Amino acid sequence: MKTEICAQRMLSRFRELSSIGQTDRGVCREAFSPAWKEAAQRLCRMMEEEGLAAHIDPVGNVYGRLSGACKDLPLVLLGSHLDTVTDGGLYDGAFGVAAALEVACAIKHSGQRMERDIEIVAFNAEEGGPLGGTFGSRAAAGNQATEGKEEALSACGLSAGAVRAAKLSRAPKCYLELHIEQGSQLFEAGERLGIVEGIVGIVRFELSVLGQANHAGTTPMQARRDALLGAARLIAFIHEKAAQKEAPFVATVGKLSVFPNAVNVIPGRVDMILEMRDMEPVSIEAFLHEVQQEAQAMQGFIVEFRPYGGKEGVRLSSAIADRAEKLCRAGGISFRRMYSGAGHDAMEMAKIAEAGLLFIPSRDGISHSREEFSSEEDMLLGAQLLLELALQSAQEP
Amino acid sequence: MKTEICAQRMLSRFRELSSIGQTDRGVCREAFSPAWKEAAQRLCRMMEEEGLAAHIDPVGNVYGRLSGACKDLPLVLLGSHLDTVTDGGLYDGAFGVAAALEVACAIKHSGQRMERDIEIVAFNAEEGGPLGGTFGSRAAAGNQATEGKEEALSACGLSAGAVRAAKLSRAPKCYLELHIEQGSQLFEAGERLGIVEGIVGIVRFELSVLGQANHAGTTPMQARRDALLGAARLIAFIHEKAAQKEAPFVATVGKLSVFPNAVNVIPGRVDMILEMRDMEPVSIEAFLHEVQQEAQAMQGFIVEFRPYGGKEGVRLSSAIADRAEKLCRAGGISFRRMYSGAGHDAMEMAKIAEAGLLFIPSRDGISHSREEFSSEEDMLLGAQLLLELALQSAQEP
Repeated sequence: MKTEICAQRMLSRFRELSSIGQTDRGVCREAFSPAWKEAAQRLCRMMEEEGLAAHIDPVGNVYGRLSGACKDLPLVLLGSHLDTVTDGGLYDGAFGVAAALEVACAIKHSGQRMERDIEIVAFNAEEGGPLGGTFGSRAAAGNQATEGKEEALSACGLSAGAVRAAKLSRAPKCYLELHIEQGSQLFEAGERLGIVEGIVGIVRFELSVLGQANHAGTTPMQARRDALLGAARLIAFIHEKAAQKEAPFVATVGKLSVFPNAVNVIPGRVDMILEMRDMEPVSIEAFLHEVQQEAQAMQGFIVEFRPYGGKEGVRLSSAIADRAEKLCRAGGISFRRMYSGAGHDAMEMAKIAEAGLLFIPSRDGISHSREEFSSEEDMLLGAQLLLELALQSAQEP
Repeated sequence: MKTEICAQRMLSRFRELSSIGQTDRGVCREAFSPAWKEAAQRLCRMMEEEGLAAHIDPVGNVYGRLSGACKDLPLVLLGSHLDTVTDGGLYDGAFGVAAALEVACAIKHSGQRMERDIEIVAFNAEEGGPLGGTFGSRAAAGNQATEGKEEALSACGLSAGAVRAAKLSRAPKCYLELHIEQGSQLFEAGERLGIVEGIVGIVRFELSVLGQANHAGTTPMQARRDALLGAARLIAFIHEKAAQKEAPFVATVGKLSVFPNAVNVIPGRVDMILEMRDMEPVSIEAFLHEVQQEAQAMQGFIVEFRPYGGKEGVRLSSAIADRAEKLCRAGGISFRRMYSGAGHDAMEMAKIAEAGLLFIPSRDGISHSREEFSSEEDMLLGAQLLLELALQSAQEP
């Protein structure tokens, strides 16, 4: 008999966990907040109620283990995160945690034999904070730097020792994560499942458009070198060119400051952050080059470009993706192999284990908002697929 | 014999007054600041040294009077302002005050008979502050509201009574002001004197460009409603259209805020102030209409327009302008009749008396900056013309 998840059990636990920290403006369960702590402890109790061996590690990652037959085989790790952004949605993170827990429960109740342990994890601080996004999974992978991070650690009530202690003692066989897409590709195409092949890299540059600040009343239009006009032209160019590139390429100017920013002074300087995301670093490089050429060609302005950080792209396990595709085809489930434009814990786990990431549709692509929504049908379908992938891995000798 | 200003006396007094509050970044002689107080007191002493009857009124306007023959005739008022913006230049305001003082000195030393008193004034707080620009001259004209301004007044250490007491007991025959252009028209045309016919009106609107905030990684370019892109297109449109209008029309977006202003979030909203200046309200109205139509035609955005204050334009005395033109023609001085894009004390005085305003060139049009510069030759020429205009008025019975 096919092992199946229990819809009611999963949804009721999901509702309980996801609503902790809920306000009128959205869910506020920021990492290390009282609401987050409450959720972590509630998850521990849920795990214990199901007979899993649960604990919270020194950086706030919550674990619960279901034992398999062979203790000496690397385990199968399933999960997502419990923290949210300020005024976030119900589904981002909490859904993946509830689904992973349900997978363990369903396997346990089915009495199926597993060669390997299955461990559920709810990583902490995926959404960012003083230590950056995906902090908990990065610490678990042993890749969280501590040198020079004393202040950030202490702001979270942590020590370097806590970070070291959070490193997994042994790399798992694989890591599987189920998450909402937080984009509109699946929803708009009417597809039910996203099989993520990789998480795009991010390159950010700070641009300073330098013109000439001047009196807004006495400087004729023809004599102006209005930095905001220069910035406006560059922003329009960036959009137009980015729209011509193939997905998953995107480019965004999300942050911009005008100087001196007074109603009666022509802007002399505009600082803005250009963010580019793609799987291929050369494609980002080429785009940046186009923007730089355009900037150089603009009369009357100097545009400075300064690197402003970023992240390398990560390829996930193609073997797991292939297996997920096979399950979709067998079950008649519409799917898409795709890249993720957002970071996820899976990209940290990919550095120490085979990692797989599945998406379910987000209505209208809206996320990090109280408007965030995914249907129960999609949640159940995603959880069932996670169960089948987990079982396959846990049963491998 | 022609009455002439004394170059050395004027320039040395100008240097002394204008350098009070000077720093590495420019002159900081903001209204009510210790540097401004020092300058006001120093000016009083200079006036007294020349035998003028000097006093500082309750709002900080500094007056010094040279007596004419007929006490019962309205006097001739000459001056400008002593306060500066933060990090301002040496010439803005202080030059006009030093020139007016020199006019009084030159007349006094020449022994010329005057029918009327000549009064020198250094208005306070022309550059703005809690009470808005041209505060001192507005109070002198009796047009400074006090109701609902208690907080702003008290922030300046003032009371409503002080404002009432600052009102001139009798309107002057005329007000004459000499100022730097703070624009580049004279400098670029190589003309030596600007005869100002009016000060443009200002209309400001706050625009909110409403799009849809979204994840900068997961939202494809085609699915975006990036408010900053909408704002960028409007800014480019505003520039292009304003450049097609006739001087003195100008339009500026000087202040802009992006929401939520994060590197990884597509802007959902941009607020910005559109400022338009012209002598003709209908021309501003027509321009605004064009911008509104363009905004309405933009796909995917809603643009809200809210009035954000402004000022009516002011026409100055054409009789005084004609006299100034005649003097220029007689002296072979290159001049231009023009409008001022910036506000000046003359526009407050124009409400109670005939008012005349003369400009000398600003190098490269730069003002409100330590780079502000006007040549000594132009300063002396301007002061001499002010002297001749003042004498004509003071000698009229």
